[in-house]
Amino acid sequence: MEQQNIEQIARQVMGRIFVELEASARHVHLTQAQAKLLFGHDLTPDRPLSQPGQFLAKERVTVKGPKGAFYNVAVLGPARKEAQVEISLTDGRQLGLQPPVRPSGSVAGSPGAVLIGPCGRVELAEGVIAAQRHVHMTPGDAARMGVKDKQVVKLQVFTHRPLIFEDVLVRVSDQFATFAHLDFDEANACGYETGDLGRILP
Amino acid sequence: MEQQNIEQIARQVMGRIFVELEASARHVHLTQAQAKLLFGHDLTPDRPLSQPGQFLAKERVTVKGPKGAFYNVAVLGPARKEAQVEISLTDGRQLGLQPPVRPSGSVAGSPGAVLIGPCGRVELAEGVIAAQRHVHMTPGDAARMGVKDKQVVKLQVFTHRPLIFEDVLVRVSDQFATFAHLDFDEANACGYETGDLGRILP
Repeated sequence: MEQQNIEQIARQVMGRIFVELEASARHVHLTQAQAKLLFGHDLTPDRPLSQPGQFLAKERVTVKGPKGAFYNVAVLGPARKEAQVEISLTDGRQLGLQPPVRPSGSVAGSPGAVLIGPCGRVELAEGVIAAQRHVHMTPGDAARMGVKDKQVVKLQVFTHRPLIFEDVLVRVSDQFATFAHLDFDEANACGYETGDLGRILP
Repeated sequence: MEQQNIEQIARQVMGRIFVELEASARHVHLTQAQAKLLFGHDLTPDRPLSQPGQFLAKERVTVKGPKGAFYNVAVLGPARKEAQVEISLTDGRQLGLQPPVRPSGSVAGSPGAVLIGPCGRVELAEGVIAAQRHVHMTPGDAARMGVKDKQVVKLQVFTHRPLIFEDVLVRVSDQFATFAHLDFDEANACGYETGDLGRILP
């Protein structure tokens, strides 16, 4: 059997048991209007992300809170209907903000921040959250692993500092690729390295 | 029954089931000679810590790595036989160091750092680690919970972002008070708040 076929089969077997982990660094989602205000134009893709259609933009932004700022923060595209700043609780401490732990898109009542780009600034009244740890899944993988959209599961991670995350949100869509997303507090707490795997516990 | 008695009984019952969690911020241990070099005198206690005899010193120090520095870092006393700098992996990234995850006191081959105080500087050839998560236990609590010194256990934490830490080192001594120690990556990954409890899993 050719090497490439073996690789493919190995990947498929692994994908039936394990979920690949990814660590999300702090980043910002913007509306199209906000991107124009900050950069003078739409977001331009730099490189694709693991989720189909999502990209890291060439544009970078400053995120300012009452106690500090982060410069050169990643902006993810495409533009959304609502701005969202995803940071870790450690980041929150440095900015002087207390982001709630929320699923992506759930920003009501969260703290705001000031975004500064080369062409302008945007004052967000809300939108700063710590993303609840979550697993993006294809419908096929979800069926194979016996989980449903919005289910909360335990995720055991086989990392340098192994642990079992509880309160992990499953999100199922045919627009997704199957990856578990941790923030950097979580990634460091489990000693995550690129390529590490996890397993959804029954 | 008096309120105080009820409190005492409640504490004793809790102590048979749960372990109180504490988050350790980045800190430095010094030798007596290093304290004299940095501050011109011995360490002076500011306030006691949860472990009997241990204290937060009034003296503070700068910790400098190849890529950055932390100012005003806590120094814990009393002086030890060997210096040790305990930071999180997040801190390591900011300093430009990759601290190994180690039990306290196990610094061989770890990276060094420069310590700067008001009276001088100390160049450590090694000593920078990320402390392996651990539970300090009295012999009585260890016996009640069925664990031994140097045993590695799972610790379920009942926090805002609940999880189960694996690879938790138990340390038993009659010099200890029973507390589980997490670093700030771990504390933030589990949404720790003061007073939160954990349970050693069988």
